[in-house]
Amino acid sequence: MTTRKKIAVILSGCGVYDGAEIHESVFTMWAIAKAGADYQLFAPDKPQHHVIDHLTGQPSGEQRNVLTESARIARGQIKPLSEFNAAAFDALMMPGGFGVAKNLSDFAFKGAKSSVIPEVEQAVREIHKAGKPIGALCISPVVIAKVLGSVQLTIGSDTETAQAIHQMGATHIPATHGQVITDQKMKVATTPCYMLDASITQIAEGAENVVNAVIKMI
Amino acid sequence: MTTRKKIAVILSGCGVYDGAEIHESVFTMWAIAKAGADYQLFAPDKPQHHVIDHLTGQPSGEQRNVLTESARIARGQIKPLSEFNAAAFDALMMPGGFGVAKNLSDFAFKGAKSSVIPEVEQAVREIHKAGKPIGALCISPVVIAKVLGSVQLTIGSDTETAQAIHQMGATHIPATHGQVITDQKMKVATTPCYMLDASITQIAEGAENVVNAVIKMI
Repeated sequence: MTTRKKIAVILSGCGVYDGAEIHESVFTMWAIAKAGADYQLFAPDKPQHHVIDHLTGQPSGEQRNVLTESARIARGQIKPLSEFNAAAFDALMMPGGFGVAKNLSDFAFKGAKSSVIPEVEQAVREIHKAGKPIGALCISPVVIAKVLGSVQLTIGSDTETAQAIHQMGATHIPATHGQVITDQKMKVATTPCYMLDASITQIAEGAENVVNAVIKMI
Repeated sequence: MTTRKKIAVILSGCGVYDGAEIHESVFTMWAIAKAGADYQLFAPDKPQHHVIDHLTGQPSGEQRNVLTESARIARGQIKPLSEFNAAAFDALMMPGGFGVAKNLSDFAFKGAKSSVIPEVEQAVREIHKAGKPIGALCISPVVIAKVLGSVQLTIGSDTETAQAIHQMGATHIPATHGQVITDQKMKVATTPCYMLDASITQIAEGAENVVNAVIKMI
């Protein structure tokens, strides 16, 4: 009897401009289930950096909590990231969205000089230390670069972000729609998704490819 | 040269308990794109009935707008439902979520005696009058039943909701995961999705099947 693989997924809110990118999050969950594995969603229990009105693109002045908003994507089935235990999972995944660069880190404001919030840094370090793979979509590879340093990854083709990744000690490899860059030694798989101008079917394809690359390394 | 089919999709917020069900919305968009058609998202520009904390399931006391929150699923690419014009589309679709029963209608509170908000009622009537098909997922068939009356549809197997549908003059046909009930004469296709206890891959399957059934009737 083979045990089903269990993958932890870290969300960063609910909405591309101030939280987790919704399509990338949903397709990550779908791809994990489609591959016959299980997922457990996590998010930090902390205030969002800000709330963006997704119709106007402007800050709304509201206050929202990252875990509470992530629970919308999760249909309530989510745990605070403080409860994450690397021993209970086979892999860790992070969808993208500005929430990664605003709530899980301050990359959106400080680039290469940014820092990652302790709970996320610890989750990445512990899963990596246990020899388990990590998958990251869209902008979230910047968090992996910041925490692990010397790792090969992609955020697509944005030169400014690629440069910041190099400054953090990692190596950026350009990639296009659905393409996955896998660092076999570091067990890190990444794909650009909405870091490129993409259709929703390309996001599904990217999520499926990176999930499968992660599962192959378990 | 064949023109790409264009499908209008009505959202009702962002989150299963007070808005549009996120997975059903994303998979509806994905299935339309996968089928080689285009979608345009719409939502009514009005306050949500209430805001539910998706972690606790309790009302939060906040105030949010249906169009503004729907814009999260849409990545900003959405129009107020007041701008909907049936002549510009080949079909109309509605994902589910409590937003359908709280923001697009008051079905959650009044059942068979509920009413549908004028903008939604008009959109459904106009597309139907033009002989164009309608697709509805999850709980949203109750809105179609209320507006069109004599139509065959499904919300899965919930007896209370099925009874309300009969009281509104429509015929409920039980259905299971991924199954689509199609009323060819009325050009209405429906599927249960999260009205059943479903996995995320079953939601993708249901959305794809109902989208394909709708496109077949165009």
